[in-house]
Amino acid sequence: MRRKVTLKDISKNMNVSVSTVSKALRDSPEISEKTKNEIQAYAKKYNYRPNNIALSLKNQKTNNIGVIVPEIVHHFFSSVINGVERVAGEHGYNVIVCLSGESFEKEVKNMQMLANGSIDGFIISLSKETQKKQSFDHLEDSISHGLPVVLVDRVADEVDCDKVIIDDEQGAYNAVNYLIKKGAKRVALITMPDYMSVGKLRTLGYKRALKDAGLKVDEAIILKLEDLDGGYDEIKHLIYSNEIDAILASTEFFAVTAMKIARGKGIKVPEELAVIGFTDGIISQCASPTLTTVSQHSQEIGSMATQMIIKRLEGKDDEPYRTEVIKTTLVHRESTL
Amino acid sequence: MRRKVTLKDISKNMNVSVSTVSKALRDSPEISEKTKNEIQAYAKKYNYRPNNIALSLKNQKTNNIGVIVPEIVHHFFSSVINGVERVAGEHGYNVIVCLSGESFEKEVKNMQMLANGSIDGFIISLSKETQKKQSFDHLEDSISHGLPVVLVDRVADEVDCDKVIIDDEQGAYNAVNYLIKKGAKRVALITMPDYMSVGKLRTLGYKRALKDAGLKVDEAIILKLEDLDGGYDEIKHLIYSNEIDAILASTEFFAVTAMKIARGKGIKVPEELAVIGFTDGIISQCASPTLTTVSQHSQEIGSMATQMIIKRLEGKDDEPYRTEVIKTTLVHRESTL
Repeated sequence: MRRKVTLKDISKNMNVSVSTVSKALRDSPEISEKTKNEIQAYAKKYNYRPNNIALSLKNQKTNNIGVIVPEIVHHFFSSVINGVERVAGEHGYNVIVCLSGESFEKEVKNMQMLANGSIDGFIISLSKETQKKQSFDHLEDSISHGLPVVLVDRVADEVDCDKVIIDDEQGAYNAVNYLIKKGAKRVALITMPDYMSVGKLRTLGYKRALKDAGLKVDEAIILKLEDLDGGYDEIKHLIYSNEIDAILASTEFFAVTAMKIARGKGIKVPEELAVIGFTDGIISQCASPTLTTVSQHSQEIGSMATQMIIKRLEGKDDEPYRTEVIKTTLVHRESTL
Repeated sequence: MRRKVTLKDISKNMNVSVSTVSKALRDSPEISEKTKNEIQAYAKKYNYRPNNIALSLKNQKTNNIGVIVPEIVHHFFSSVINGVERVAGEHGYNVIVCLSGESFEKEVKNMQMLANGSIDGFIISLSKETQKKQSFDHLEDSISHGLPVVLVDRVADEVDCDKVIIDDEQGAYNAVNYLIKKGAKRVALITMPDYMSVGKLRTLGYKRALKDAGLKVDEAIILKLEDLDGGYDEIKHLIYSNEIDAILASTEFFAVTAMKIARGKGIKVPEELAVIGFTDGIISQCASPTLTTVSQHSQEIGSMATQMIIKRLEGKDDEPYRTEVIKTTLVHRESTL
């Protein structure tokens, strides 16, 4: 099957902005008849089909903010939502949460449902599938129809909107740098695939730290796992088949799994194997040994995103879109020297 | 300020059902003029003010289920929601989640917002404050206006609707019984206040197990904590000031806190102090030692509640309201002998 034509394709080929394309397709009076005709003809020719986001234009302010995140079982997203709730409450907004379950289709469906008059704007962290497909029309549609979007953590460069991200590259750099300073020579990385923005950035930071320290990057000890709740066998293979003395793991879960496997093999943490995780959740505090982690200040991410969306909604912010970067902190515990 | 008159007060004083009161107050043709006049006069006299739930009657099926839970930071509720998502997805329903943050006011506000045409029915776990106030008009209103409610885990006997509960009493009984069989003579209890249904039931099960074993109930080693994320000082006092050889804790967090404090005092877990928690979450698995827990099968609770609400929504279920009891299981790990 041929790839679906997107707003972005049309925009690129006709040399106009995505917003213009979107407005032209819904026959907005803001766009000249000539441009509208050209764009509509092009869309028809290439069989463009919209995602139907925000087809029912909002007619009144709801004071509700829609939040769509991949899941809430892990500490990170539930803590982001806590931050959203806090700031929303302070400003008299309600929060409605929907889960994409890492599915593109469900992310789009949830947006369609909420755009149907239930909310004034979105705070969204993209599903894995959306990042893999690189398909963002549902976001463009929403924005161009007056429902602003703030992307958090899992974002897309291609989408022009407010964003809150973590300095993932620097966070990974700092963690690896710390491990090297404490004597590590062979630092392994357990992270997500590159199509996930955070996976890619953390790998870049990891590699930069190794290079700055004059250490060789060995792809054999870089593990990229699809299943964020799995990877037991792959992590076991990594630990059993390689000489490593430290691990940077992109989730608490990967880190704790690695520590368990190491203990099973009689490897002492942190003396023989130092471990640093990402996300300063309850797992890091309850693990044995307790886990040194790159804290992402997830609640602050949620608070910041909410401040940004409320500014847009209350019309106090006609500035260009901003990307706020939340700095990470290394929280020292027992899993490192 | 005088306590607000509730539907239940009116129902009791006029000797009619809550549903009749609710219907009379919204002038339903189902109720005789005479009864309506009497009820409306009474409501006026005692200055009854409705919660305005479902004032805008739903006019079409949304295929959305509204879920209101106290919080999602702990494993229990996020896992319940996972169960809801799974079954809802299988039946073509979307799920909208709102958080009460343990606040009565926010619970009511969330219900009002969602009842406004966004959902077909509710799955709700009551906030601490709602259980403390014993104020359930918002639930009665919703049900009598055709938006069914399934209550889960934190329920109210006073509300006539479908419910999914855990056999909290039996779960606590089994856990304490197990501790006693393994040699414990002085079992402490760390739980929630009695106004929370689960707190009350677990205390009953704990006491029953002690009595059945011929052991004395000592109120000095029963701790009832308001703050579900706190209690460090109280737990420390419990452990430092009493001779105890086992603890049943109503949350993973209480259990892990107790184990930490015990370790700090040089008490060996499980040899000198056996510990059992409630909720078989990731904390129990990552704790050190790993925690023996009463698993509440939280995902199953969510699945069951969703099946019940869908049956009501699809009119396949005009049976009397049911209360489904999910059986708990004791999951054995390192914190007990």
